[in-house]
Amino acid sequence: MQVIQEEACLFNFVLFGATGDLAMRKILPALFSAHLDGKLHQDGRIICVAKQDLNQESYLDWVHTQAGPHVGEGIANKNADQWQSFLRRVTYVALDATRAADYALLGEQLNNQAVTVYYLATSPKLFEPICNHLAASSIALDNARVVLEKPLGHDLASSRAINDAVARVFAEDQIYRIDHYLGKESVQNLLALRFANSLFEPLWRRESIEHVQLTIAEQLGVEGRGEFYDGTGALRDMVQNHLLQLLCMVAMEPPTSLDANAIRDEKVRVLRALRPFSRDDLETRAVRGQYAAGAVRGQAVGGYHQEAGISPQSKTESFIALHAEINNWRWAGVPFFLRTGKRLAERTAEIVITFKPIPHAILPMPQGVESSNRLVIRLQPEESIQLHCFAKQPGDSMTIQPVALDLAFDQAFKQKRADAYERLLLDVIRGNLALFVRRDEQEAAWRWVEPLLNHWQSTAALPKSYLAGSWGPSASSAMMSRAGAHWPEDR
Amino acid sequence: MQVIQEEACLFNFVLFGATGDLAMRKILPALFSAHLDGKLHQDGRIICVAKQDLNQESYLDWVHTQAGPHVGEGIANKNADQWQSFLRRVTYVALDATRAADYALLGEQLNNQAVTVYYLATSPKLFEPICNHLAASSIALDNARVVLEKPLGHDLASSRAINDAVARVFAEDQIYRIDHYLGKESVQNLLALRFANSLFEPLWRRESIEHVQLTIAEQLGVEGRGEFYDGTGALRDMVQNHLLQLLCMVAMEPPTSLDANAIRDEKVRVLRALRPFSRDDLETRAVRGQYAAGAVRGQAVGGYHQEAGISPQSKTESFIALHAEINNWRWAGVPFFLRTGKRLAERTAEIVITFKPIPHAILPMPQGVESSNRLVIRLQPEESIQLHCFAKQPGDSMTIQPVALDLAFDQAFKQKRADAYERLLLDVIRGNLALFVRRDEQEAAWRWVEPLLNHWQSTAALPKSYLAGSWGPSASSAMMSRAGAHWPEDR
Repeated sequence: MQVIQEEACLFNFVLFGATGDLAMRKILPALFSAHLDGKLHQDGRIICVAKQDLNQESYLDWVHTQAGPHVGEGIANKNADQWQSFLRRVTYVALDATRAADYALLGEQLNNQAVTVYYLATSPKLFEPICNHLAASSIALDNARVVLEKPLGHDLASSRAINDAVARVFAEDQIYRIDHYLGKESVQNLLALRFANSLFEPLWRRESIEHVQLTIAEQLGVEGRGEFYDGTGALRDMVQNHLLQLLCMVAMEPPTSLDANAIRDEKVRVLRALRPFSRDDLETRAVRGQYAAGAVRGQAVGGYHQEAGISPQSKTESFIALHAEINNWRWAGVPFFLRTGKRLAERTAEIVITFKPIPHAILPMPQGVESSNRLVIRLQPEESIQLHCFAKQPGDSMTIQPVALDLAFDQAFKQKRADAYERLLLDVIRGNLALFVRRDEQEAAWRWVEPLLNHWQSTAALPKSYLAGSWGPSASSAMMSRAGAHWPEDR
Repeated sequence: MQVIQEEACLFNFVLFGATGDLAMRKILPALFSAHLDGKLHQDGRIICVAKQDLNQESYLDWVHTQAGPHVGEGIANKNADQWQSFLRRVTYVALDATRAADYALLGEQLNNQAVTVYYLATSPKLFEPICNHLAASSIALDNARVVLEKPLGHDLASSRAINDAVARVFAEDQIYRIDHYLGKESVQNLLALRFANSLFEPLWRRESIEHVQLTIAEQLGVEGRGEFYDGTGALRDMVQNHLLQLLCMVAMEPPTSLDANAIRDEKVRVLRALRPFSRDDLETRAVRGQYAAGAVRGQAVGGYHQEAGISPQSKTESFIALHAEINNWRWAGVPFFLRTGKRLAERTAEIVITFKPIPHAILPMPQGVESSNRLVIRLQPEESIQLHCFAKQPGDSMTIQPVALDLAFDQAFKQKRADAYERLLLDVIRGNLALFVRRDEQEAAWRWVEPLLNHWQSTAALPKSYLAGSWGPSASSAMMSRAGAHWPEDR
């Protein structure tokens, strides 16, 4: 988050998997947005690499039709010229990532005076061959960075294998493991609120906080990615990475600086302090679910087993709720509730920090509202940070009313907010690792979730069924009740 | 603040001094506003008492022309009918407050089934004769309340004499010493914020608060009240009552209930804990000033000595700034800066609570802004409560920007806010003493300010001169500097 280089930095941006979904939907639109904002060095080049035997012209046509619709304000009208100047940065290179000989073609395209970013928007199976072939080629890698997209392994051992393979070619400070939730304004603003104000930090601890809830809920199902998802499940897909990263942002101690390692040191301390699941916890503090046919937004939708690519006996969880704790002085005993799932009632991602109730009420509280102060950091669908508290209702009695304060974003700034990917890609070009996941964080997260994966593999029990369009299995609400809490929708 | 009687209560409202300025500008308009809001019992009567030999009709004409212009939304148009029905509550009684025989006339007007409020909007010299004559008359006083307006004495002894005289007729729980600052929404909301939220109370102490500033600034001069003011001065006129009452609302411990005595017990504890002025403090922690000719709002205005009714040698202070401290565990060492004055740069009344700076900054703070969190409770000219804190500026850096959060009043409620007098008069009718000053509070306040009065009387030193339209003498800023602080305008 440290501003390493304020001025735009000369770069080669090498995008492996350049014909893929992620490239078209996220990466190229984010680069265009940075281009539009004047954040890219004018001589910065984008080298798009994929296996398909396309020429430059037909690739650009493809970008136009595939990426164009994902560009924020469109590429027509006032942006049409900018879009053309953006496309002039792009060079397509057809390359089989597994063929050493092809890398010479890539080398020819690189400006040796520039930082080179290798963005691996490919299957993780290709990470090792790509790194090895880059190393074996004549391309210099000392001024290079590599960006890795999830999934980075399916357990601790496979994650280590990937990290080892990449580490044989790139040093840890050249490796950018992306987690786009960390690029969200609201998540970074959480750091600003905590560490630029003296108001919040004294309250940010077990003495004042009742519990923390982290939810990433999707309405979508597996959406044509059935085969991949069935081998993955919600714990690997969302908890090990995104939800635990968000948990770190809430729970970490104040870092000594904004230096990438200062921040990541604090995050890994949180991950290592996560209370391991006891044998009992595996049943009582974890709820997995699988959706049955139901309705989302009034549309009938099939169950998990009816989705294409799902094995008929699949026990893969499409929902998970966890009750985590952090074994340190700041947080001991404070529940951190994590949940995520597909085919849920809403599309939302939020962090809800509930403060302890007042010890003694002298003012009459209104009926039917949450009577605790809450800080709600919303990441999706709209980003916001709201503080829910109580004020006096104007008039001649002392009646109290809830008020929600918009803490972070001025109305005027709402439009200016950068897309998470744009922010993160600029950080890669600038060499700012602060919002990227370090190897030890990733492995600590795997270490914590692995006992659950092992338990589910060994047990005959099935995930709890839940209706598509609901908030998950009732066992999720029951888990909360046991901890004296409830999800927002259960109020 | 406890709602003693929710339903409107049958009353006789006896207004002594009914032809005076306060009656016309404040009391009758506030009663009309309560009438308009449907807060007055339909059979509630207003008995207006004064010496002038007026008949009912000519008094009502006078009310119409004198009080009418001070009614919030006017008495014309949609309120015209309501104004007429309000005037039907009013009965004028010509009465010489010093003549026992006249009180029989008053007695005839009272509904004995009703609570009777005696509002003494008269010179304090009349408090004793009015009380005595009421007691000597055949009027029953057990269901009566008496409302006293400042000034209640000019020092501890004279204040005690007044209180003793009233106490010979009325019990303490029948005596309503009015301080209209306590009727302000923003002041009551301060209680709601402190005691209905768990967020603020942990911060509400020496560990988190750097200092508290209380300002009541006027642009007006003595405005035809020269003779009165010259015998009074800013310390007696504003500090002993209003500023110390506001200080109590900020500093008091959480009361056990909203019961009037529970609140007043806490306030008196604060007043008694005020650090007495040492010999040095009398010079270094108190600054008095007197305005010289200058300009307010671009209009040239004369100096204090040029005002009518001011003695040419007058040493009376038209400005005072104090550095107070509270000797208890919560507040020890935290400066409470109080100031008030006439002919200052702005008309404003506000409480500024400045929190300690963050101990270690990792985010770059913007230049030229206050870098501490502040809670600003504004009482005049507009009421508001704002929390000034810092959030991230949207975009791809971690630049911080100040944000001001409106903590208390929904936009929608802004109109509905009750006038302070209306609120307090309804409290008198309902019998709710919580927002009125108890005798022991008043006397503790006198006890604290008296050494200053004595010191000024004994010293040959003169008040510091300040330019009308400035923020007071420079010694006020110097006093702040010695405490490592500054007034908002000195930033």
